[in-house]
Amino acid sequence: MIRLLGMGNALTDVLMPIESDQLLNALGLPKGSMQLIDQEQFYRIRTQVSDIPRQLVCGGSAANTVTGASKLGVNSAFIGKVNDDEIGINYQHDLQYYGVDPRLLKSDQASGRSLVFISPDGERTFATYLGAAANLLPEDLYPELFRNSNFFYLEGYLVQNHDLFLKAVKMAKNEGMKVALDLASYNVVEENLDFLNQIIASSVDIVFANEEEAKALTGFQPEEALECIAKQVDIAVVKIGSRGAMAIRGEERVLVPAVASNCVDTTGAGDLFAAGFIYGMSKGRSLKDCTRYGTIIAGKVIEVVGPKMNNSVWEQLHSNF
Amino acid sequence: MIRLLGMGNALTDVLMPIESDQLLNALGLPKGSMQLIDQEQFYRIRTQVSDIPRQLVCGGSAANTVTGASKLGVNSAFIGKVNDDEIGINYQHDLQYYGVDPRLLKSDQASGRSLVFISPDGERTFATYLGAAANLLPEDLYPELFRNSNFFYLEGYLVQNHDLFLKAVKMAKNEGMKVALDLASYNVVEENLDFLNQIIASSVDIVFANEEEAKALTGFQPEEALECIAKQVDIAVVKIGSRGAMAIRGEERVLVPAVASNCVDTTGAGDLFAAGFIYGMSKGRSLKDCTRYGTIIAGKVIEVVGPKMNNSVWEQLHSNF
Repeated sequence: MIRLLGMGNALTDVLMPIESDQLLNALGLPKGSMQLIDQEQFYRIRTQVSDIPRQLVCGGSAANTVTGASKLGVNSAFIGKVNDDEIGINYQHDLQYYGVDPRLLKSDQASGRSLVFISPDGERTFATYLGAAANLLPEDLYPELFRNSNFFYLEGYLVQNHDLFLKAVKMAKNEGMKVALDLASYNVVEENLDFLNQIIASSVDIVFANEEEAKALTGFQPEEALECIAKQVDIAVVKIGSRGAMAIRGEERVLVPAVASNCVDTTGAGDLFAAGFIYGMSKGRSLKDCTRYGTIIAGKVIEVVGPKMNNSVWEQLHSNF
Repeated sequence: MIRLLGMGNALTDVLMPIESDQLLNALGLPKGSMQLIDQEQFYRIRTQVSDIPRQLVCGGSAANTVTGASKLGVNSAFIGKVNDDEIGINYQHDLQYYGVDPRLLKSDQASGRSLVFISPDGERTFATYLGAAANLLPEDLYPELFRNSNFFYLEGYLVQNHDLFLKAVKMAKNEGMKVALDLASYNVVEENLDFLNQIIASSVDIVFANEEEAKALTGFQPEEALECIAKQVDIAVVKIGSRGAMAIRGEERVLVPAVASNCVDTTGAGDLFAAGFIYGMSKGRSLKDCTRYGTIIAGKVIEVVGPKMNNSVWEQLHSNF
């Protein structure tokens, strides 16, 4: 049985409907853009938007995966770093609401968050302040965080801190865990190519990549990239967007077409693909079924805005698996 | 209980007393030198020395360590690659003679060997042909090689093949083994610095280094280098020649002076230090005792020429521990 432990940037989506796009101009945020902001920008924006009503939803790539897997009944936990502020407390409660064991470390910096400004026409503008999340350090990790889990899922964004990444992997392996890595984004892969190639070869058992990430890692088109990654790991998965997903485990090869979807917003598609795949593994399903579950859930989440789905959708998905 | 599995270059020392140093001139080997020779040089030299009587002794850094540990009663095995030639068959028998389980892979190339020319005045000239040993490839490794062992000891020389090194470490970790690494030589460290730093942080539990290797790895003098390495691993050991050896395990720090020795030849000192240290670990002894056993055995082997000691010396050492 899989006991999943995710680790990643603990980021809360702060959803704020705005009455006019003029606010975006005042904040210096191009409509529709996604950008990282530093502490100074964050403090400045925060004072300007303090009156806007907001909804808080726990997010971050790996956290989306573990909350999704938990919704499907997988025993799940999450390591991340927050502050004791409202956002951090809400983050912990949100994880618990999703049935995820929160293994949260505490930082003096404000909790990480994505400010999501929703324009009157529905378009979204993102400003992400990593804050406490980026303050997760190797010395924060201790063996007990990794106990009672056997499957470690890391988001590639954490590779920005090599020492943290290496220590996390070592601790997971010392507990005998399988290690799964989602490559996160092709920028991340390009910027950390040697590091990622080595850590995948030495310590990773399962790789999730989309085609841009797979190309950045291997230099190849999806089919060849998949073969190349599969030489290094037990299971390699390359998602090929509207064409579906491919996977290799040993001599076994599968290609699963995408399900027909009314795509609205691809946010969370990769995160929840992994949730479905891991759910399949936890049930001992075939490679084809694991991949199929991934594509089905990814096909559902792109029909809504944001990475979260209603309970009723989860229940319907779960009952079909 | 430790069940030791070593992996390294399977090299046989071919000891050849020569009647005159003129042979060295004819072979193009400066007296007293140590050099790697390629296949062409090897074939040429081999035909010129085929008449000289010889003694074969299994060697190679990690093999010296596991044969030594086995002499002290540690359950031991060894992974290496040889040919089915006389040297390879002798290598297997020699390991068995030492009580080591030979997990030998086979190559079409001639077995690796160090031709050791012993001049009339006792001076030695080395010409090493890696042959089959250097032909150990990642695709040669399969999980069964790593079964029934729980402690993996790698010689740093293997780092010349990154893919082999990474796959070996992954397979060992997947069997839940502790991984120990001896850094082999400062050249090896300098040439593979980023690779070694990453693999130590992600996957190595015990590091053995002498002061040159520790400096090459960290840039620091021995004391500081030891602290630096200890941050990455469970146990860090830095050997400081005639001053002895230092080790750190968690908060525990020890410095053990060298034993007084009549130093004749330091060959094998590092290899057998590790054998003594691992023997101590296998008996659950203190960090200080493990380090002490290492220095005592190293102090003995430097009193003889070559990396091997008589049975009577081993028995005397063993009875004192």
